[in-house]
Amino acid sequence: MKEEKSLMGITVKKEEDFSEWYNQIILKAELADYAPIKGCMVIRPNAYSLWQNIQDYFNRVIFGMGVRNAYFPLLIPESFFKKEAQHAEGFAPELAWIEKKSDECEERLAIRPTSETIMYDSYSKWIRSHRDLPLRINQWCNVMRWEVSQTKLFLRTREFLWQEGHCVYAAEDECSRETLLYLDEYRKLCEDMLAIPVIAGEKTKKERFAGAKQTFTIEALMPDGKALQMGTSHNLGQNFAKSFGISFLDENGNSSHAWQNSWGFSTRLIGALVMVHSDNKGLIMPPRIAHTQIVIVPILFEDTKEKVLKEAGRIASNLKKAGLSAFVDSRDNLSAGWKFNEWELKGIPLRVEIGPKDLAKEQAVIARRDTSEKKPVKISSLAHECQKLLEEIQDNLLNRARKFLESSIAEAKTWPEFKDAIVKRKMVFAYHCEEKECEESIKEETTATSRCIPFTPKSKEGLCVKCGSEAKRKVYFAKSY
Amino acid sequence: MKEEKSLMGITVKKEEDFSEWYNQIILKAELADYAPIKGCMVIRPNAYSLWQNIQDYFNRVIFGMGVRNAYFPLLIPESFFKKEAQHAEGFAPELAWIEKKSDECEERLAIRPTSETIMYDSYSKWIRSHRDLPLRINQWCNVMRWEVSQTKLFLRTREFLWQEGHCVYAAEDECSRETLLYLDEYRKLCEDMLAIPVIAGEKTKKERFAGAKQTFTIEALMPDGKALQMGTSHNLGQNFAKSFGISFLDENGNSSHAWQNSWGFSTRLIGALVMVHSDNKGLIMPPRIAHTQIVIVPILFEDTKEKVLKEAGRIASNLKKAGLSAFVDSRDNLSAGWKFNEWELKGIPLRVEIGPKDLAKEQAVIARRDTSEKKPVKISSLAHECQKLLEEIQDNLLNRARKFLESSIAEAKTWPEFKDAIVKRKMVFAYHCEEKECEESIKEETTATSRCIPFTPKSKEGLCVKCGSEAKRKVYFAKSY
Repeated sequence: MKEEKSLMGITVKKEEDFSEWYNQIILKAELADYAPIKGCMVIRPNAYSLWQNIQDYFNRVIFGMGVRNAYFPLLIPESFFKKEAQHAEGFAPELAWIEKKSDECEERLAIRPTSETIMYDSYSKWIRSHRDLPLRINQWCNVMRWEVSQTKLFLRTREFLWQEGHCVYAAEDECSRETLLYLDEYRKLCEDMLAIPVIAGEKTKKERFAGAKQTFTIEALMPDGKALQMGTSHNLGQNFAKSFGISFLDENGNSSHAWQNSWGFSTRLIGALVMVHSDNKGLIMPPRIAHTQIVIVPILFEDTKEKVLKEAGRIASNLKKAGLSAFVDSRDNLSAGWKFNEWELKGIPLRVEIGPKDLAKEQAVIARRDTSEKKPVKISSLAHECQKLLEEIQDNLLNRARKFLESSIAEAKTWPEFKDAIVKRKMVFAYHCEEKECEESIKEETTATSRCIPFTPKSKEGLCVKCGSEAKRKVYFAKSY
Repeated sequence: MKEEKSLMGITVKKEEDFSEWYNQIILKAELADYAPIKGCMVIRPNAYSLWQNIQDYFNRVIFGMGVRNAYFPLLIPESFFKKEAQHAEGFAPELAWIEKKSDECEERLAIRPTSETIMYDSYSKWIRSHRDLPLRINQWCNVMRWEVSQTKLFLRTREFLWQEGHCVYAAEDECSRETLLYLDEYRKLCEDMLAIPVIAGEKTKKERFAGAKQTFTIEALMPDGKALQMGTSHNLGQNFAKSFGISFLDENGNSSHAWQNSWGFSTRLIGALVMVHSDNKGLIMPPRIAHTQIVIVPILFEDTKEKVLKEAGRIASNLKKAGLSAFVDSRDNLSAGWKFNEWELKGIPLRVEIGPKDLAKEQAVIARRDTSEKKPVKISSLAHECQKLLEEIQDNLLNRARKFLESSIAEAKTWPEFKDAIVKRKMVFAYHCEEKECEESIKEETTATSRCIPFTPKSKEGLCVKCGSEAKRKVYFAKSY
């Protein structure tokens, strides 16, 4: 038994080899596995059920905002990419073309890297009048971007799962307002459900989505000092409407091009969750998104086994009645200690232990995954106590991550300060001219990229930390995934 | 307004041009649209929400059976197809290869037509001991089969959405038993939720899934006399376990190959729902799967508008409190009659009309979509009455379809009887030798194929309706989609 356990556990420390530690958590907690094709991954049930919980939560949010789900084709004709010049340029290098041709026109077909073009072709047929607007459609699907950089499970794979929302409006201000509303829902998803604090803001010109007028983002900071883009919302203006002929007759019978936004997040959120919350024992799932919140481990001895298992079952059903997800690990070929280790590795937020001695005292022992604190609790108040502790764990995970984020931001007034902070794995906040060339030179020298320009009220102007020219706003920079 | 209405409605009759009628329902009820790539389709929100309801229902069912969802890669290496010879042969003609190669071995990659091979490669790594079994995994995804036959929205498209369940067992009998359990859950989904009666049974050798030991199916009959395969469950025996090296150590430390099944249904269920239940006014959604069960249409006059809208809103919120899905169509640019037609076209099972005269009598008028019956109901008992009527509609749709199915089955004792019944668009039940060549000659002469061998107790033997040789069982034949 001992051997099995040591085989299973995490063998490196988070603070010593972050990258290997991350991979071990993913593989050993059975969240994902490498696929036999380079750049692809298998999302195993332990991670897919987190993705389902994210989907359920986010569907409720967007349905309330008037969005409906749909499904558009996987394959996109070559000519579609060419309709919006910047968009085509942005995605061309990463397209996976198929050998079959479209029957009608012998045109090449690519697997979607994103669905603006194929969706907007349909939109141009469906939208005729201002009464057809706003049109708000979202799709959950797989996309493919044939990157050459090294695979990182959940964070950089050629195929990934995501949602992409694509809305059309009659009025520019409605479009702009909702672009930010979706971004704010992303922030809430990350902070309230995943317990990951983010910085929201606008992308610089250089980092803007191919074809967008403005791109907005939420950025999180991983424990190794690298930023991770958690979701983006693009104000497309009328760019695509003009390229794809999406126009409508207004109330006075005049024809206008429509206004559009698109917004997406992907399964990389699960990678972020793992990096931010896990420790050297394994994963820690935030209770609100966990597929299982509580594992009940009965302490089994031959003579009391039956009684203890029965009580464990009763506890599980009471917890379920209270709306919590719980199960009993009744396997009899493994020791209680082995089970503790397994469920700690797999990240279940609360463990309830119950043995014959506890039973005699009408109590059980609750152990928190995040702090390792243990305490005995009367069985009669177990459901209430678990509910309270799960909320505490959720809050604690968010607060811990927020403290780390706040302590990792460094303001830089000079270029040496900037470089020094990046070396120290900080996220740097500094005046920047927002010019593409200057940003490129920053990346060349430090490998850091601009993450976002926050929505804080405009402060007084300053000088660009790199080139010294006039700068209107401060920008966050960091190395990133 | 009149013009708009006539533009929107169905312009052919179900009994006169079934195929054109079907297409008009799909397009005009905004269930789907043709994609710009031949053989592909866009699933619009009105149909996708039916698919979501099917997913929610079926997830609850399989989660209860110990199945968990996961996601495997879209692309499959060429060598994988070759590992199971029959499987390779079955799918080779329909594969869409991509131009990019796998980096490691310069191997060709195809878009999945089904996922046995890519999933079982992972299974062979994950399964070591009898304690890893049973392994029950399902995935919801898109698949691609490059067929050359003509596109039919929902029924025959190159890309479609489906679920595929793939389970592994230590024991043959457990595998066999569960293969039939999943089939029975498909039957329940069709009959209880979609109100479509089916015939369950086994496929003949000729119609068996490529690589399976046995294939089981549920078959429905469309109003034009063509059968539609609604879902299949395959007992794979040890075929794939041997090709992919899926073996486990049993309790005594001996290594054995595992036993497997796979089972799937697709978005073609939505096509079946449309064909079976719709009429010349449009779609009829079975209440249990409908995205919207009740539309409330207020009858608006200038002086009473405010009062009537307020009451309509109150009714909607009461219906929602009773667990029903309802909304108020408060658009003021359309007449009530126009709205009646629109929601009939889109298949909402119940309509509640409320005008000033009704209000005075504290009543509303309920109209059933399936029978067109209308009756006044006291507002205080509206929720209860709607609940009752929705159940009645669900039952009525199923009974109607069952009557049609039963009256469409013809037993054939002789070959002329067989041919005559097929010409008359019947589903034929006849003794058959189950030999591939004989079945092929039946298809050649009649275009009918075998649908299934039902699970009825074995009757006495007979003579094959076609070749006259000994036949052990009776088989259903029909033309099919």
